[in-house]
Amino acid sequence: MPLLDPDRLLPADPTTRAIAREIYDAVSDLAIISPHGHTDPHWFAEDACFEDAASLFLTPDHYVLRMLRSHGLSYDALGVPRRDGGAVADGRHAWRTFAGQYHLFAGTPSQLWIDHAMNWGFGIDERLSAANADRIYDQITERLQQDDMRPCAILDKAKVEVIATTEFALDPLAAQGKLADKGLVGRIRTTYRPDDVTDPDMPGFLANLKRLGDLTNCDTQSWEGMIEAHRIRRAAFRSFGATATDHGVPDLVTADLAPREKQALLNRVLSGTAAAADAATFRAQMLTEMAALSVEDGMVMQIHAGIDRNTDPQLFAERGPNLGADIPRAVSPRAGLAPMLQRFGNHPDFSLIVFCLDESTYARELAPMAGYWPALKVGPPWWFHDSPRGIARYLDALVETAGFYNLAGFNDDTRALLSIPARHDVWRRSVATFLSDMVARRLLNLTEAREIAVWLVYGAAKQAYKFD
Amino acid sequence: MPLLDPDRLLPADPTTRAIAREIYDAVSDLAIISPHGHTDPHWFAEDACFEDAASLFLTPDHYVLRMLRSHGLSYDALGVPRRDGGAVADGRHAWRTFAGQYHLFAGTPSQLWIDHAMNWGFGIDERLSAANADRIYDQITERLQQDDMRPCAILDKAKVEVIATTEFALDPLAAQGKLADKGLVGRIRTTYRPDDVTDPDMPGFLANLKRLGDLTNCDTQSWEGMIEAHRIRRAAFRSFGATATDHGVPDLVTADLAPREKQALLNRVLSGTAAAADAATFRAQMLTEMAALSVEDGMVMQIHAGIDRNTDPQLFAERGPNLGADIPRAVSPRAGLAPMLQRFGNHPDFSLIVFCLDESTYARELAPMAGYWPALKVGPPWWFHDSPRGIARYLDALVETAGFYNLAGFNDDTRALLSIPARHDVWRRSVATFLSDMVARRLLNLTEAREIAVWLVYGAAKQAYKFD
Amino acid sequence: MPLLDPDRLLPADPTTRAIAREIYDAVSDLAIISPHGHTDPHWFAEDACFEDAASLFLTPDHYVLRMLRSHGLSYDALGVPRRDGGAVADGRHAWRTFAGQYHLFAGTPSQLWIDHAMNWGFGIDERLSAANADRIYDQITERLQQDDMRPCAILDKAKVEVIATTEFALDPLAAQGKLADKGLVGRIRTTYRPDDVTDPDMPGFLANLKRLGDLTNCDTQSWEGMIEAHRIRRAAFRSFGATATDHGVPDLVTADLAPREKQALLNRVLSGTAAAADAATFRAQMLTEMAALSVEDGMVMQIHAGIDRNTDPQLFAERGPNLGADIPRAVSPRAGLAPMLQRFGNHPDFSLIVFCLDESTYARELAPMAGYWPALKVGPPWWFHDSPRGIARYLDALVETAGFYNLAGFNDDTRALLSIPARHDVWRRSVATFLSDMVARRLLNLTEAREIAVWLVYGAAKQAYKFD
Repeated sequence: MPLLDPDRLLPADPTTRAIAREIYDAVSDLAIISPHGHTDPHWFAEDACFEDAASLFLTPDHYVLRMLRSHGLSYDALGVPRRDGGAVADGRHAWRTFAGQYHLFAGTPSQLWIDHAMNWGFGIDERLSAANADRIYDQITERLQQDDMRPCAILDKAKVEVIATTEFALDPLAAQGKLADKGLVGRIRTTYRPDDVTDPDMPGFLANLKRLGDLTNCDTQSWEGMIEAHRIRRAAFRSFGATATDHGVPDLVTADLAPREKQALLNRVLSGTAAAADAATFRAQMLTEMAALSVEDGMVMQIHAGIDRNTDPQLFAERGPNLGADIPRAVSPRAGLAPMLQRFGNHPDFSLIVFCLDESTYARELAPMAGYWPALKVGPPWWFHDSPRGIARYLDALVETAGFYNLAGFNDDTRALLSIPARHDVWRRSVATFLSDMVARRLLNLTEAREIAVWLVYGAAKQAYKFD
Repeated sequence: MPLLDPDRLLPADPTTRAIAREIYDAVSDLAIISPHGHTDPHWFAEDACFEDAASLFLTPDHYVLRMLRSHGLSYDALGVPRRDGGAVADGRHAWRTFAGQYHLFAGTPSQLWIDHAMNWGFGIDERLSAANADRIYDQITERLQQDDMRPCAILDKAKVEVIATTEFALDPLAAQGKLADKGLVGRIRTTYRPDDVTDPDMPGFLANLKRLGDLTNCDTQSWEGMIEAHRIRRAAFRSFGATATDHGVPDLVTADLAPREKQALLNRVLSGTAAAADAATFRAQMLTEMAALSVEDGMVMQIHAGIDRNTDPQLFAERGPNLGADIPRAVSPRAGLAPMLQRFGNHPDFSLIVFCLDESTYARELAPMAGYWPALKVGPPWWFHDSPRGIARYLDALVETAGFYNLAGFNDDTRALLSIPARHDVWRRSVATFLSDMVARRLLNLTEAREIAVWLVYGAAKQAYKFD
Repeated sequence: MPLLDPDRLLPADPTTRAIAREIYDAVSDLAIISPHGHTDPHWFAEDACFEDAASLFLTPDHYVLRMLRSHGLSYDALGVPRRDGGAVADGRHAWRTFAGQYHLFAGTPSQLWIDHAMNWGFGIDERLSAANADRIYDQITERLQQDDMRPCAILDKAKVEVIATTEFALDPLAAQGKLADKGLVGRIRTTYRPDDVTDPDMPGFLANLKRLGDLTNCDTQSWEGMIEAHRIRRAAFRSFGATATDHGVPDLVTADLAPREKQALLNRVLSGTAAAADAATFRAQMLTEMAALSVEDGMVMQIHAGIDRNTDPQLFAERGPNLGADIPRAVSPRAGLAPMLQRFGNHPDFSLIVFCLDESTYARELAPMAGYWPALKVGPPWWFHDSPRGIARYLDALVETAGFYNLAGFNDDTRALLSIPARHDVWRRSVATFLSDMVARRLLNLTEAREIAVWLVYGAAKQAYKFD
């Protein structure tokens, strides 16, 4: 078996596999629309070479780090930086540790992505192991020094038509300035993610709110001034290509308070006398405010909800966030989105894409809601569910009630540049597999299936994010 | 591909498909038992022709309306009547709008049902589209004027052995009187659905309770009198063939209060001083009262639980209920049914069928409960889950723990007459598919599979609803 | 079709089935590791013959009893003993009742297990029915009197390498003494299950706590003394081969109180003035205390959480626990385990295996948690989910995020001795089926699949329970 079988992930039954291949062939070479993700805009602005194999594949990939940690490998041994500046393994030693445990990824999407990236980017055709660790490390690290492996060249090679990064409201947008100078805005777009100034539980929130005021010349001590500051920042982000906002919330709750209540809430938050529930209400109200601004300025609103972040305080203290200790929680989109949708759900200028990690809501709540509200689309399978089985469950649970055309296509949502083509390929193969079963069971004909595949792979994201 | 492939929905693998076809052939022509639904009894009592294609296929079908609305088509353009009597599109224009967007239904059960009904009822063999909209509209509308497309003839053509409609407690049962005169009671049966007088959150509840008293000569201000009034109405419904009651509740909660508490609760409800929780407790207690009456009079009790109705107040104000804005919620049958089951769950004269839209309860709660309590059966997949994938998930999650024989067979639960044969056909094909996999995997032989199929398609509903 | 087809449960598609058979052949004859279950240690200590077919297959099997009861068969007719000593059916009559309704088990794992046990243990090759009930009853009952069907011989015949039973903290461990004399400790191990002295809702809890003090010479009125008593009992259990503890809790909640709060809580519990919530907090704190002791003494900690026991008070009053009226509930491992994991989740000497019956937590919480915390493994599908479809859902939901190597292998968790080889065989076939699909879809090669199968069938349990 080669590292990447051309029929991987397609169905086992020969008749259905042949159908799947025909569908896949219709989409496998389409350009990539990457409307939501966490790649570093400085990569593209500076277009410098990546340093080595470990800094490309290992240390930025929390999917990989967490799995190794779960088997008792320390983050020191994996080269994850410490806040106290203490010594951690260098790239080569960390890589060896990783390579020696690569069998742990059997059956996980990480293996699919890494195998794909090694083959696609570096022509590697053998599975990583202790035996070949050093050789592969050198091969990747050397290849990374060549011009056609710089970040912008990788976008070309992967046929990325448009990619969105994600910046906090207070981000100086320096990388975006350089991208503008290079004429890359439009292909590379930012996204307005104001969690730093909408979530009172964020470290430094009060200082952030003050900085937001300074940055925009607004009085962020008054509710109206604070909203105006957002209005201004959103416009700034739009000038760098942003068509969307994004909101990360632990719960999935919106609110629709009366004006007087809003100012009173802000006052309590500002004074430091806020009760625990106030932070949640503030987040909930700010989501509805962002919806109101989206109606005004046409930015697509994304909500990523229902994740308990940093559940290991020891890790957080030692090394910070985004290292694998974030665990999903149950949510109720029906109850939580009601205040917002009752206000804006029928508005022709509002467009909302919701993501959550509670799959029990797919068929029970999200599909019926997306199949009713004009404003609402369901975001693609997120995080742990962006995997072959996760995608299969997603389509199985959603399509019958939401239809194909209330889905927002695919997001790779990644911090790992080389996983972009890999993730899109898994989506394309999974979509082909799903549709081939419908063709084999005579629920679609092949022409319809191919049209739907093109929609799910390309058109849906482009339309949902207003890239056309 | 013809509009309806004879092997549609059967499995892709050729060996398994052949088995599925053998199982399907054993049930495809069986008479239809339709023990729960929302067809209009006046259709059968008056047996008048349907007006046109739109009034048959479009305006009464909230599955279809909601999907079109979710893509920004207005209910005005779809001909949905307004409460203010304002103008809406006529049948032909609404139909054109629908036909032009028919591709939105790809992958949904609505497409299966409509394709089936168009072919089965009207011999149409092409998919609806903008191009053929007018021609198909005329073809259907003309055909509807012929005698063999009147409602009763449709029941014959569909081999409907028995069908139950659903009426509120205060319904005058005028249609049923006419059906009795025509000798049709028994084939067409009513169902006692007293939500109008058991749910204090219903509009006009207090007036309804008073009318219930007038109708039965009972004092509905006293708990005992109110129960007696139900006793009398249930008997009246039984005289028109009712073998079952049905109860629609937003939550899934029962209660078992002491007599003194019951009267105090009723007093609060009557006085208008009831707290919000009182309405929920009243509904909960009334479910247990209905169980007690079922033990007395032998009527089968159905509970349809866990739907948040009318979640779009704007739509409700404009056009009323049942137009697609009802969204499922999570429930706990284990906790919610405990008071009722602890009282009547072992009673040999009690028979309860529970439906909910929270699929996470199938394997976790409903199957273990139905596999223990003699009184309890699990209702078929309801509403959004009455679909090929919904049925597959239902059987997958329930059968191993509840067995086949604690399931209540199939309900079409529809307001759309021509969807009845279509929905039963989807159930039959889905059951054949499920069982064919068990035969192919040597868990059943073909004879057993056919017997179970006949049970699930015909015997189970007949027995569960006491139609034999 | 013979009673047991050699290819039963393997996939239908011929290519995939051939792969599955190759994988299954690699594990079908491996020795059985049975690290958690509820067989009676006296069986092995005394090694007496089983009495008759009913006492082997019917009365100890709550899966079977509940299903028959759900169809209106009384526990009197099934020979289930009454607390009041009233007459119940004898073995033969109960067996006839069971045999006459055996078709009710179609599609359930009970049928798979019973068919397997009848064939494996007694060479029976026809399905049980009213017609052959007496003949089979006699055949089984006679065979049971032969030496090679005594309990220890059955362990040999089933190739059981090691089996763990489960005893409460106050168990005198008399059977274990005899097993030690016979040199069987090691092959047969006990497990420390202290629910009798950690759950204030248990009948007789206060007396139990006192007895725990007497047994260990500790003052169980003081928190420290109580913990010391556990320390001593755990050592006693270890002397009889125990490598693990087990904790059955209705909720899935842990706590991490300050020392002063612990004593105050114990005081309230002891004084009988405990509020309802105190019992829950006590259970929650005791789980964390047990984790602390596991860190000390190296015993593996199991938590079986989320079951509402004895939901039918009438049954419980009449005949006691474990007769089918236990119903699963929703839980949140993320929230519930946080206090314990924040304390011990990174500790290299802590090992925790969690089981629950809320499948919605598999992909949402358990897989991400097991894929992060070094201490945590996910227990195999439990109780109602230990079935072909339950296993398929389990692997589908967990593997992509937790990997294969954070799973704890298989437990049969049974009270029915002859179901042990049957249950392990279902697991082996289900694992082979799951992996064969991955091979057919080119996600694993056959060599890898076989290695993973051996791990899931043998190595994982052996390592997770420290049997090596």
